[in-house]
Amino acid sequence: MYRPLASISNKFRNINNFSSIERSYQSSKALPDLTKDRYAVQRGDFSEIKNSDIKHFESILSSSRCITDKSDIESYNVDFLGAVRGYSQVLLKPKTTEEVSTILQHCNSRKLAVCSQGGNTGLVGGSVPVFDEVILSMQLMNKIEHVDEMAGILVCQSGCILEKLEEHVSERGLCMPIDLGAKGTCHIGGNVSTNAGGLRLLRYGNLHGNVLGIEAVKADGTILDLMSNFKKDNTGYHLKHLFIGSEGTLGVITKLAIACPTASKAKNVAFLGLESYDALLKTFLAAKRDLGEILSACELIDSESLKVSTQQYNLTSPISEYPFYLLLETSGSNAEHDEEKVSNFLEAAMNRGDILDGTVSSEGNKVAQMWQLRESIPTALIKEGYVFKYDISLPLSHFYEIVPVMRERVGDLAIRVCGYGHIGDSNLHLNVSCTEFNDNIYKRVEPFVYEYTSKLRGSISAEHGIGFLKTNYLKYSKQPEALDLMKELKTMMDPNGILNPYKVLPRNT
Amino acid sequence: MYRPLASISNKFRNINNFSSIERSYQSSKALPDLTKDRYAVQRGDFSEIKNSDIKHFESILSSSRCITDKSDIESYNVDFLGAVRGYSQVLLKPKTTEEVSTILQHCNSRKLAVCSQGGNTGLVGGSVPVFDEVILSMQLMNKIEHVDEMAGILVCQSGCILEKLEEHVSERGLCMPIDLGAKGTCHIGGNVSTNAGGLRLLRYGNLHGNVLGIEAVKADGTILDLMSNFKKDNTGYHLKHLFIGSEGTLGVITKLAIACPTASKAKNVAFLGLESYDALLKTFLAAKRDLGEILSACELIDSESLKVSTQQYNLTSPISEYPFYLLLETSGSNAEHDEEKVSNFLEAAMNRGDILDGTVSSEGNKVAQMWQLRESIPTALIKEGYVFKYDISLPLSHFYEIVPVMRERVGDLAIRVCGYGHIGDSNLHLNVSCTEFNDNIYKRVEPFVYEYTSKLRGSISAEHGIGFLKTNYLKYSKQPEALDLMKELKTMMDPNGILNPYKVLPRNT
Repeated sequence: MYRPLASISNKFRNINNFSSIERSYQSSKALPDLTKDRYAVQRGDFSEIKNSDIKHFESILSSSRCITDKSDIESYNVDFLGAVRGYSQVLLKPKTTEEVSTILQHCNSRKLAVCSQGGNTGLVGGSVPVFDEVILSMQLMNKIEHVDEMAGILVCQSGCILEKLEEHVSERGLCMPIDLGAKGTCHIGGNVSTNAGGLRLLRYGNLHGNVLGIEAVKADGTILDLMSNFKKDNTGYHLKHLFIGSEGTLGVITKLAIACPTASKAKNVAFLGLESYDALLKTFLAAKRDLGEILSACELIDSESLKVSTQQYNLTSPISEYPFYLLLETSGSNAEHDEEKVSNFLEAAMNRGDILDGTVSSEGNKVAQMWQLRESIPTALIKEGYVFKYDISLPLSHFYEIVPVMRERVGDLAIRVCGYGHIGDSNLHLNVSCTEFNDNIYKRVEPFVYEYTSKLRGSISAEHGIGFLKTNYLKYSKQPEALDLMKELKTMMDPNGILNPYKVLPRNT
Repeated sequence: MYRPLASISNKFRNINNFSSIERSYQSSKALPDLTKDRYAVQRGDFSEIKNSDIKHFESILSSSRCITDKSDIESYNVDFLGAVRGYSQVLLKPKTTEEVSTILQHCNSRKLAVCSQGGNTGLVGGSVPVFDEVILSMQLMNKIEHVDEMAGILVCQSGCILEKLEEHVSERGLCMPIDLGAKGTCHIGGNVSTNAGGLRLLRYGNLHGNVLGIEAVKADGTILDLMSNFKKDNTGYHLKHLFIGSEGTLGVITKLAIACPTASKAKNVAFLGLESYDALLKTFLAAKRDLGEILSACELIDSESLKVSTQQYNLTSPISEYPFYLLLETSGSNAEHDEEKVSNFLEAAMNRGDILDGTVSSEGNKVAQMWQLRESIPTALIKEGYVFKYDISLPLSHFYEIVPVMRERVGDLAIRVCGYGHIGDSNLHLNVSCTEFNDNIYKRVEPFVYEYTSKLRGSISAEHGIGFLKTNYLKYSKQPEALDLMKELKTMMDPNGILNPYKVLPRNT
């Protein structure tokens, strides 16, 4: 029987804001090894920063926004996972596109490497320097320029925090087409640079569809105004897509326009317990059919994933233990209609025996509590020590099989192997947690996970991107001709290779 | 009062299939002037076809798919609008990607220019040769390879006709994310190459969001396998977007994977009469708010547009005459819920006085009849003689103003000036019809329409693309830095410039 959420405890804490967790996590741990040592990378043929460069940057930004104090820079040198660490000595905080342009012009002429950084919540080491790249933090480029309420369009600088944008547009009856766990810290510019997926992709599609216009600065400082405030614009090559998902290696995004759908009036979330992956898949397919246009999220959580989130954050599950859980969300314009659809769907699925137990609610705080169980998983895993994270697209018919296979491969070496993620988008998050980075596990897991994914013609990076950590595995998802074209593009856009070097493109080239 | 559609006459004919109209239209008219004469274009530095080239093509395709008979090629040399005409002497019909690759390899080494052609329903002269380019027709590359019903994904060759794909996936409970008037003739490859918009964009978004994978052949014959059958794939640069909307100038699309949403069980269409553009805008905004997730199309039709479609095709309007009409469509998973939403919305709008009259139906043939009134407008205008067609994105606050302005500019020279289009996407189709091409009208209309659009920061081509007819106006929507990058890309991808020359990029460069 599914039942209302009245019985859920109120122990849930609000952890939407990643920053606090991140900070407490980072301060409680030793710094990771320097990337150059752990991964034996060779520094590119770039110049080293001189005093004259610092003076030049100070003349552009004033000294308050040109930071050289080592301890002030430290957190910008280390990634969120504690997996990679650079040793940049200059952190720049521009406020305008023109400042970004002047900085890049200088770096390009001096052959100084640059790492542009958003909220630094990336999971593949793409957002921190590998060596001593100049860090270009976008955090002060956080102006919301305009919201067109009629057309549903937001125009803002790239350093705006996703959650702030959501608040801003929701006051105007709209919502952001993207939502993810790191919303309290991540920048919209970082989301776009990495083509972040997240929790609403099932409903609103990806950023290639939702970003209407981009302003970006090329490596040589040229400002590219590719802004369009319209959903349709077929004037020449669709250049903005060069910057979506290229992780800051082809240019620095400074401004963007994004389509914002009408906010839904009603929301329902169901948290369901299931016996097997087969039952879960059946339930998902029934949800697509029965809930149709109001289905807005469909998240698989396996028992290990729920365990880690409840244990690490002292959360309570609203239902008892099952091998699998499914979190379903609907968003619609009519609460009564939505509730009827959800009830009919759940009743039929329980009658078929697909769902064993479950709970459903439309109340704001209950909905938040159920989401918290899902959204806490990534950081809960990090709290256990070190996490090997894999983010893969797999056919639904073979979606979960890799989790038990991996469990067997790593055996007792790991604390846990778990799988969760966006089954609605065929996107599995496979995680292996251990007390600290462990080369033995590393070798058992990689490249096996990529080979496995490649055999099923899956994607070795569904949403996290390639960053630094996955460059050498790119070949498992990209053909040689495509890699060649990537290199040609990089050379054309950034002939000196100063933008986010050692990232995205395979290093052996 | 709105009322059911029982009173509508049954005079409507099915004109979904563009081909029959096109053929009867073309055969009833004299051929247009050769493009090179009418537009005084200079032939590029390409080789001319020799007998040895023909022999080579025949060795690849056999003679039955290498056509050199002048009368057989004629209809491939003339565009749908009768606005442009080339004089190609070779028409090739490959069936496989390898054949396309071998053909392009030869053309590139010989510096033979190539015009790839889908269903030839484009409206900007992009799909026919300007001079004697080899025509590469994709019409025999029409295999449907695979439908993944669980994930909602279709994989097919690029020469598949959109309507056939719709039929194929609808038998499997899915629908195509794109629909347009030319569906009976246009190819999915042409849709993707031109980033076609159409009638469902409001609901399902654009092709950049919906195309999951592309296989394309580069100018030098290299086959690029950028296929992905997943909604999420962040492995390296998102190269497929280079081919979406670049109108065959950067490569030839041979295969693709596209996301297909679950087909809606219920559909409602309302055809409404309104007094003013203001009332129409108010009604659209209320529809967005009240119909939310089930709103699937929102089309403005002005009185002149409805007149031409009813007159030319002997159709009957279901309501009496008004200055404006709004065609609203909803698609959803629950007929009862949808009808309730639509009724509530319409009643409120009528009570406010925004809607003066209207009719609504969920019956298949009535729905088709109402759509026919809208979908017949483009071809009805062509039947009047020659049409100057403009397809612009404009802010909703100034959306319709250009129509009366243009009416005054051309005065009695035109048969009619009318405006219709996708108000839901801020996309207006402005048309000026006359008995035949008229230089006097041409000069009154262009570049005025582009200057006007540019002043409002609109797009001079919302969905039709640039093709041949709009290359010199691209500057009104693209900054010089963007044009430079376009040229760099073209040079990188197609150094000999053999792919669809004289198109998209400004000719004076």
